Amino acid sequence: MELFTYYRSTSSYRVRIALALKGLDYQALPVNLLKGEQRGAHYLALNPQGRVPALRTDGGELLVQSPAIIEYLEEVYPQPALLPASAESRAKVRGVAAIIGCDVHPLHNVSVLNQLRQLGHDDTQVNQWIAHWIGQGLAAVEQLIGDRGFCFADEPGLADVYLIPQLYAAERFNVDLSGYPRIARVAALAQAHPAFAKAHPSCQPDTPAQ
Amino acid sequence: MELFTYYRSTSSYRVRIALALKGLDYQALPVNLLKGEQRGAHYLALNPQGRVPALRTDGGELLVQSPAIIEYLEEVYPQPALLPASAESRAKVRGVAAIIGCDVHPLHNVSVLNQLRQLGHDDTQVNQWIAHWIGQGLAAVEQLIGDRGFCFADEPGLADVYLIPQLYAAERFNVDLSGYPRIARVAALAQAHPAFAKAHPSCQPDTPAQ
Repeated sequence: MELFTYYRSTSSYRVRIALALKGLDYQALPVNLLKGEQRGAHYLALNPQGRVPALRTDGGELLVQSPAIIEYLEEVYPQPALLPASAESRAKVRGVAAIIGCDVHPLHNVSVLNQLRQLGHDDTQVNQWIAHWIGQGLAAVEQLIGDRGFCFADEPGLADVYLIPQLYAAERFNVDLSGYPRIARVAALAQAHPAFAKAHPSCQPDTPAQ
Repeated sequence: MELFTYYRSTSSYRVRIALALKGLDYQALPVNLLKGEQRGAHYLALNPQGRVPALRTDGGELLVQSPAIIEYLEEVYPQPALLPASAESRAKVRGVAAIIGCDVHPLHNVSVLNQLRQLGHDDTQVNQWIAHWIGQGLAAVEQLIGDRGFCFADEPGLADVYLIPQLYAAERFNVDLSGYPRIARVAALAQAHPAFAKAHPSCQPDTPAQ
């Protein structure tokens, strides 16, 4: 498999975690978002939305959007499972993933922040915007996840795949996380887990030297 | 089943379409977003995120977030299927759903528009914001869906469940859709389909009389 990725992209980071948790090898094909490579003709011909991540499967199909890619990995490489067995439990895990994937991350991705700056907002206002959405989403996640282990189990799963990159973004933007003890517990477990370490933005092929 | 819903909520509308396509009965429990009922103590005790939709299953579990609810329905009530059989095809359908569910709708839901107004933006600027995100997302969807039938098949599926409510929102906000012939074809098919008619915001229990 080949993964079109950017080291600091939250949604690329999710897919890297899922690949690492499942022990899957892939070739990273970095797309430099700062240089605008995602809007280049070559990449747009592959992915008309011009975003990362995208996954080229072993069969040569190009898949876009991290939620679709991660569900694909779960279907084709089911072990270790990122989702529990019962439909209700699966829906609860997917619900937390969707809070982050739909109601938090999209509000602070780089294209949205650029729009806000074009509308005349300074860094203070942009940071308040980011903190608002991250705070609101994490407050809900804090109430929905479990009291021990990762978000929903002793082993990491789909909700953790979404949560940890979101926390990385929160840290980058200096969002205060002190009010979320369950989330802090999950973050500490992930920090000590090799799959999360392998997927981290600090050690990707396109991570800048400094 | 019971569905916490609001007639004009895009994501409630998605779940209503999925329920209708599968021929599932449910009791609608309207949550009036204009009156702020989603932030009331009663509803927050059920759904700490304070959003609709939420689905109470026959087993009494409360599920949140439309992507999680729709995958639940697909797992528990597999026929008629909203997703095709092969993992690659499923990922392509889910990819289009995710473009709408992650990169279009979250940027124009009512809480975001309220934030923009609080930041001092007038209707013209808010409408430009909406048109920007809807236009960018639909342009990608137009290139990713098929040349005949619904988005990916003769029968409607998951991508259509997301697309049709998005088009309803686009119409409400007067976004120009003339550049999307494939999407227009899907819209015409959905307009003639009884499940989409049943789920439409114009005929829900909480639809205002005027």
